[in-house]
Amino acid sequence: MDFDITRTGRAIFHVTDLEASRRFYVDALGFVVTEEDDNHLYLRGYEEQGHHSLLLKKADKAAVEVMSYKVYNDSDLDMIEKAVIKKGLPHKWLEKGEQHAMGRALRVQDVSGLSLEFFANMDRVESLLQRYDLHRGSKVQRIDHFNVLVPDVQKAYDFYNDELGFRPSEYTEDENGKLWAIWTHRKGNVHDQAFMNGNGPRFHHVGFWLPDPLALINTCDVLASMGMADSIERGPGRHGLSNAFFLYLRDPDGHRVEFYFGDYFTGDGDFEPKRWSVHDKTRQTFWGHEAPDSWFDETSPYLHVITGEEVKTEKAKLTLYKPDFTM
Amino acid sequence: MDFDITRTGRAIFHVTDLEASRRFYVDALGFVVTEEDDNHLYLRGYEEQGHHSLLLKKADKAAVEVMSYKVYNDSDLDMIEKAVIKKGLPHKWLEKGEQHAMGRALRVQDVSGLSLEFFANMDRVESLLQRYDLHRGSKVQRIDHFNVLVPDVQKAYDFYNDELGFRPSEYTEDENGKLWAIWTHRKGNVHDQAFMNGNGPRFHHVGFWLPDPLALINTCDVLASMGMADSIERGPGRHGLSNAFFLYLRDPDGHRVEFYFGDYFTGDGDFEPKRWSVHDKTRQTFWGHEAPDSWFDETSPYLHVITGEEVKTEKAKLTLYKPDFTM
Amino acid sequence: MDFDITRTGRAIFHVTDLEASRRFYVDALGFVVTEEDDNHLYLRGYEEQGHHSLLLKKADKAAVEVMSYKVYNDSDLDMIEKAVIKKGLPHKWLEKGEQHAMGRALRVQDVSGLSLEFFANMDRVESLLQRYDLHRGSKVQRIDHFNVLVPDVQKAYDFYNDELGFRPSEYTEDENGKLWAIWTHRKGNVHDQAFMNGNGPRFHHVGFWLPDPLALINTCDVLASMGMADSIERGPGRHGLSNAFFLYLRDPDGHRVEFYFGDYFTGDGDFEPKRWSVHDKTRQTFWGHEAPDSWFDETSPYLHVITGEEVKTEKAKLTLYKPDFTM
Amino acid sequence: MDFDITRTGRAIFHVTDLEASRRFYVDALGFVVTEEDDNHLYLRGYEEQGHHSLLLKKADKAAVEVMSYKVYNDSDLDMIEKAVIKKGLPHKWLEKGEQHAMGRALRVQDVSGLSLEFFANMDRVESLLQRYDLHRGSKVQRIDHFNVLVPDVQKAYDFYNDELGFRPSEYTEDENGKLWAIWTHRKGNVHDQAFMNGNGPRFHHVGFWLPDPLALINTCDVLASMGMADSIERGPGRHGLSNAFFLYLRDPDGHRVEFYFGDYFTGDGDFEPKRWSVHDKTRQTFWGHEAPDSWFDETSPYLHVITGEEVKTEKAKLTLYKPDFTM
Repeated sequence: MDFDITRTGRAIFHVTDLEASRRFYVDALGFVVTEEDDNHLYLRGYEEQGHHSLLLKKADKAAVEVMSYKVYNDSDLDMIEKAVIKKGLPHKWLEKGEQHAMGRALRVQDVSGLSLEFFANMDRVESLLQRYDLHRGSKVQRIDHFNVLVPDVQKAYDFYNDELGFRPSEYTEDENGKLWAIWTHRKGNVHDQAFMNGNGPRFHHVGFWLPDPLALINTCDVLASMGMADSIERGPGRHGLSNAFFLYLRDPDGHRVEFYFGDYFTGDGDFEPKRWSVHDKTRQTFWGHEAPDSWFDETSPYLHVITGEEVKTEKAKLTLYKPDFTM
Repeated sequence: MDFDITRTGRAIFHVTDLEASRRFYVDALGFVVTEEDDNHLYLRGYEEQGHHSLLLKKADKAAVEVMSYKVYNDSDLDMIEKAVIKKGLPHKWLEKGEQHAMGRALRVQDVSGLSLEFFANMDRVESLLQRYDLHRGSKVQRIDHFNVLVPDVQKAYDFYNDELGFRPSEYTEDENGKLWAIWTHRKGNVHDQAFMNGNGPRFHHVGFWLPDPLALINTCDVLASMGMADSIERGPGRHGLSNAFFLYLRDPDGHRVEFYFGDYFTGDGDFEPKRWSVHDKTRQTFWGHEAPDSWFDETSPYLHVITGEEVKTEKAKLTLYKPDFTM
Repeated sequence: MDFDITRTGRAIFHVTDLEASRRFYVDALGFVVTEEDDNHLYLRGYEEQGHHSLLLKKADKAAVEVMSYKVYNDSDLDMIEKAVIKKGLPHKWLEKGEQHAMGRALRVQDVSGLSLEFFANMDRVESLLQRYDLHRGSKVQRIDHFNVLVPDVQKAYDFYNDELGFRPSEYTEDENGKLWAIWTHRKGNVHDQAFMNGNGPRFHHVGFWLPDPLALINTCDVLASMGMADSIERGPGRHGLSNAFFLYLRDPDGHRVEFYFGDYFTGDGDFEPKRWSVHDKTRQTFWGHEAPDSWFDETSPYLHVITGEEVKTEKAKLTLYKPDFTM
Repeated sequence: MDFDITRTGRAIFHVTDLEASRRFYVDALGFVVTEEDDNHLYLRGYEEQGHHSLLLKKADKAAVEVMSYKVYNDSDLDMIEKAVIKKGLPHKWLEKGEQHAMGRALRVQDVSGLSLEFFANMDRVESLLQRYDLHRGSKVQRIDHFNVLVPDVQKAYDFYNDELGFRPSEYTEDENGKLWAIWTHRKGNVHDQAFMNGNGPRFHHVGFWLPDPLALINTCDVLASMGMADSIERGPGRHGLSNAFFLYLRDPDGHRVEFYFGDYFTGDGDFEPKRWSVHDKTRQTFWGHEAPDSWFDETSPYLHVITGEEVKTEKAKLTLYKPDFTM
């Protein structure tokens, strides 16, 4: 690869009620507000030095505008453009200044129909890691990963692995040896981007890293004390796959957020991805209550990077396994 | 009251496979084995200076032999005898030496048909609280409470309150103002003995205190790593009632154990018991997944203190509310 | 004993700068402010249903007005009066209404010159235990104990044990078998009141219970982030005596506060107090850095309950052991 | 850079009493023993899939044989050889099979006299991350970093940065703008290799990552319960630099081990290293007791990679600042 994608960068969510979103993300979960106006809420975790890792935009309809990755150098963006042109993928540039607090960005509709963005520069802000006097709620540290449903996991993975340089950490196969789900990374932990077999492309969740397991328990306590216990969809529990101590929340628009703690280093050159059978119950849930149907069935749509229209979905190529679907 | 019941003392469980019990309580949960022989396993928590707080006896059938309370002085036992004679309750003495490691004990079949025991003295052993090198598994600290189903909660409570001096901390009423469940204590935290409306008398669970919330999470991790995740019946979650961070386990014979952390001081003279409506959802579950049916339906039988036969049960006097039953 | 002292009730500190105290106790440590005016700050922990457990009064000079214990019934106060009259101790009544939010209170100058108060009733307020959305800082739960220096520990203990009913949990003896320090309780954990050999009577510290060990670590982080790391005098560490995970802080007037977690149940009738030699290094510090000189040398004076003058001190009767003094 | 050093790989310590080392590292701290014989102890953390990250060799004298880094591909080793030949540095190859469980390794005496090793392959073993039933003691997860004293930090850093590709995360300057200490990384957290101004080259410590803050507290408890509290040299505390919650231990030969938790992601292309003044007290200790003299003065010697003799040291070029030396 002649470019270097560093990590998961930011998510842009369209939300229908910014006040409700603020109450959930800021008042309850304790996300840091870097900036806000009538139509935008720029949020980050306490250690983050990028301007934001979650951008909420007021809109008529809930959707995911893009999943965005940070690259090492600005020139990496030009190399990525070459790769997407070679693949014939729809794409466009947003120049520096077109997006608040951002350098130029390349937006791409990928082979699975996912709406992607790549950027090298975002305004740098002060890390609040040692401003413990300001830490509240879930004490969110930083963005960690995205997880999506795609109809053809093998195809999605081939693009991310061959063309973008994402490395596999763990994966699930069905009984025919077909790739059913896969976790891929750039930054050296379990994932920056996961793909699960499903009707898609649809967005499943964005994951944020918490500082310790008690911050995850405290998330539940704070939500319950504010009358928002219903926003807890699944967990606390531990995934077999990734080893994460997890909690899944639904925001007021139904976007799903995972709070995540406890995976491991995956950056070795001789690291061997871990294989799971789709029928292994401990894969999804090492321990923890059964995931509710909503966790499998409810997801967010993508908006096309050129047209802005909701991206059409296709049926999953492989069987949907709900009882022990995936994490 | 002219006697002083100090606290929940010990549970005696009949179990059918002592090896399976040992694997669960000792290998997985890390209970301390004070002593054992072919037919008995004497277990305690790390801070306990009593010989045991959980006695497992090999038997043909799973059952609860007694729930046992510790009194302050040996002479308190005589006063309790007077009280039970006055109430005409079946009772008997087990003299010092009849039970291993125990002083004399008074056994009583109470007004609800519950099999009780009272004792003042049990062999004292070394506290292992500061033997951190030995702490394993769930790092169980000490026994905390019993919880039972009785057909007439008001009647059960009146006996415990009026005759035995248990003080109420929290309680649940139905829409007619009838007492549906109540938590009572002697030692100054939320409970030593709880009663819930149900077909009974049946034993619901014994609660043990853990040293911190992570020990509860670690319990789940250890059980899962040993292939015993199925023994987790409910939790982790937080009860509204009692504020406990809880985890319910089922032992190999189906006896239920609660791991419990985080209630509060209830010993004030002007303490006012907290009232909950049976229809308040947050009462049972401040947050956490829905309790499975087994949590409501499956309980352990008592053995009669005189005959040794299984105690007959009666139908609950009040409506059974499953969706938001109680904790 | 024909009366029942329930527990440590409240401390009243005279402080010279209420704004500085507020910044320390409220902004940094997260104590709940029940009420405040220009001259008073009424503070409590998150689970407490009493109006306050720490009262700060603006004054010209830092001092301890009283250490106050809560009794079970109002009539217990009359019985205590009889006991202090029998001992010929200076005392007076403050009638209901003389002190804000308080019922009548009996103030006593005890045999060691300590300024004591006993009360049965204080205004009841809402517990904030389940208002996790409000918990901040150290998440202080409740007041736990007092620790004082007295010149004659045996004499102080005899009064508390024989006349007031405090039970011993752990104690320290010197090489001649003299009582060098002792921890006594009413509520069933390690202490409500500790006495250490020293020039006195002087107030060493008030202890508050934290919800878990991470709240103690977080206390350090928050203080450091506010530029107040210098208020950490000793710890984190673990005491051999009591097993507490501890942290000692000095407030802006030099009053000492201990944050405390992890002792054990002491309420058994056959509980045997644990003896330590004054020369056992693990007694004071199971692990942790050496205590600084200030911890031994700096204490707060008492004000006489009748005259309001600072109470005169006497030399300690036994040797002062600094290197491994006591906790 | 035309090669890719992945991360800190392993330390090789010479120890004089393997039984004492085993008691410390295995019995107390809970390191996993992958293999052992009369002269070697191969240790790793619970998540590690490399055969070992700490190799203890029985020897007459305590010393550090090498600090070893893992590279991505075997061919990277040839490129590193070219770089060290260009710099005229002493080096040699150890072929596959010469060292147990290892592929070929390149050993280098670097510009500061540090004894280095580079390898691509080590036998892969099972991760025990999800064998929670086996986790004990400190629950060590993985090796994290090395910290050393060198007489010329600028020179040491220039070599690591220019020739080996280590990126700076935080650094300390003296009042003349001279580089006094620096933290550099390859794997995207605060450090794989730190350099501090001092008489050197001498080895200061190897850092291991713990799973959560309570594992660090538990380390102290377990050591104290085994009578080894004296092996705790410094901490618990938090460094300003790196934000780590830290604990420093001395093994039976005086080698220093840091247990470490809580730094942050440093892999962004526009990451700006954080500058500290050597006179900033919060740099070394955000909070925590003063470091003892031993922490500054006592270090381990290196053995020359060619001669096996102890490497000679030189005086530090810059002033030694003890009161607020560095972390």
